[in-house]
Amino acid sequence: MQAQLIALDWGTTSLRAYLLGPAGQVQNMRSLACGIMQLPTATRHIAGQPCVDGFELAFDEACGDWLDANPGIPVIACGMVGSAQGWREAPYRTTPASLKALSTALQTVRSMRGVDVHIVPGVIQHSTLPNVMRGEETQVLGVMHSQPNLNDCLIGLPGSHSKWVQVQDGYLVHFDTFMTGELYAAACEHTILGRTQQHSGQFDGAAFERGVRVALSPDGQLGPLSTLFSARTLGLTGQLTPTQQPDYVSGLLIGHEVSALSRAVRQCRGDKPLPAIILIGNAQLCQRYQRALNTCGFADVSQAEQATEQGLWHLAKAAGLLHHTQTEG
Amino acid sequence: MQAQLIALDWGTTSLRAYLLGPAGQVQNMRSLACGIMQLPTATRHIAGQPCVDGFELAFDEACGDWLDANPGIPVIACGMVGSAQGWREAPYRTTPASLKALSTALQTVRSMRGVDVHIVPGVIQHSTLPNVMRGEETQVLGVMHSQPNLNDCLIGLPGSHSKWVQVQDGYLVHFDTFMTGELYAAACEHTILGRTQQHSGQFDGAAFERGVRVALSPDGQLGPLSTLFSARTLGLTGQLTPTQQPDYVSGLLIGHEVSALSRAVRQCRGDKPLPAIILIGNAQLCQRYQRALNTCGFADVSQAEQATEQGLWHLAKAAGLLHHTQTEG
Repeated sequence: MQAQLIALDWGTTSLRAYLLGPAGQVQNMRSLACGIMQLPTATRHIAGQPCVDGFELAFDEACGDWLDANPGIPVIACGMVGSAQGWREAPYRTTPASLKALSTALQTVRSMRGVDVHIVPGVIQHSTLPNVMRGEETQVLGVMHSQPNLNDCLIGLPGSHSKWVQVQDGYLVHFDTFMTGELYAAACEHTILGRTQQHSGQFDGAAFERGVRVALSPDGQLGPLSTLFSARTLGLTGQLTPTQQPDYVSGLLIGHEVSALSRAVRQCRGDKPLPAIILIGNAQLCQRYQRALNTCGFADVSQAEQATEQGLWHLAKAAGLLHHTQTEG
Repeated sequence: MQAQLIALDWGTTSLRAYLLGPAGQVQNMRSLACGIMQLPTATRHIAGQPCVDGFELAFDEACGDWLDANPGIPVIACGMVGSAQGWREAPYRTTPASLKALSTALQTVRSMRGVDVHIVPGVIQHSTLPNVMRGEETQVLGVMHSQPNLNDCLIGLPGSHSKWVQVQDGYLVHFDTFMTGELYAAACEHTILGRTQQHSGQFDGAAFERGVRVALSPDGQLGPLSTLFSARTLGLTGQLTPTQQPDYVSGLLIGHEVSALSRAVRQCRGDKPLPAIILIGNAQLCQRYQRALNTCGFADVSQAEQATEQGLWHLAKAAGLLHHTQTEG
């Protein structure tokens, strides 16, 4: 069946390209290490001309052959490619943000091939402490439009900068950010904690769970700035082996994140039961969060798949990019 | 007047040597970049023999001439020099710890010069999450024995790993650690926050205070993993300049530390007023903590001076090392 859309998930370090069929199903997928901070540099000919532009080179590498094989196929992209450091800036849209609002704000850059790339804007929340996302809005829309009855649910996107998104009546209404992933890496690689850690390559569930429980315990009330030091002292006193320490620290930080989140959620909701949670992202990381959330009292936690490609599909559809298609999904 | 004691404050990155007179007053002081993790390596002759041992070399560099000029003068040292990676391990003593308990547990290493170096043990607290200190116990003893009526007071030692110590009836009874300084450096140097920061070399009090107030505000309840991201978003939205960002982040983290501390203190004390606080350490860093503590409701905050040399003096005296002295202080 004929391909209908090329969808690009173009972040800081990686570029994923999807070739989508008539109902949005994935016909082909590629993953390249061509994020906007590590674009290709080797000159190549594109459309008959020598090219040194990193965005053009990455774009051509990701889907040049698909464009050749599918003349006129539309292209949509989300992620840091739309940032001020990206190919074309797609300014943030404010919360509350809907599929419609975002799909009417796509920014276009014409590539050397003459093909337009439509770039999805990020979302900004003008709270006292502002919050921003870029790429995650597309994943959230993907989940919102492939799952019915999504009210009263919290969508979690664990990662370097975890996002927690409240959706309501088709709108992305509020979100928070936690720098957990990036601070975990910085603490393990650039503080004293790293000196006694050994990475075994295997996930130590018990050490992780122990970290989560410490974060949720009365001892955890001093916060991560304090509890992190216990990775060292439990090591010094022979209560935590070097190979247990990385997952213990991971459990501590994720535990502090879900603990702070649950406090905020409970404060907002009063007597209402905790909301269902849908996680989007790396499966192994989502499993860690699922464990921590369960321990913290969130009973209904599930993982969504294909959120990015579904989000890009629905955005392209809402933007009218698929008008040549006869059998839209 | 004749010198009575050589006192060494020997940490991970630096070595401070004090020559103390009959009442413990400082007659001379030197600061060397010869911490136990960066010992000298160039061979030298010591006591007529070629020497390659880093501890011997650093010791000789710090006070070889003082030893020559004052035959028989006793030497005492505190800090990481007594750790498992130090010159001679001085095993931790448990809380509650007193001057007497520590002074009777000095470990001795005989140097190539034939001079004994008496090393002060660190202190361990066997709480659910254990806690350790090495060097700070000496500073706390210095303050305890140079200030009368020190009950109901909290001693703070800001730094890479800040310590907060409760003293009672001459005992160091409880302490907590916050990795604030080290995590501040890791966040600024090894996360996305560093990319938009500019260091002006001047302290921006307003930016610092803003960070403290955010940490203490309802927004701060999500904790540092979340509020740290605001350094980026306030920058993105033009509300925080690149040169304001480092001190804002410093205020955020110190704010979260004193906020967690005050919560714990208030929980313990019920209706009793907040305790007086004595800070020990780098004067500029102590001033930051003083501001944050004031903002957090601690009204009585002061800074102690010469805590290390006073602590070493009182330990040496209690250990009987000064028995040749006729006019002890």
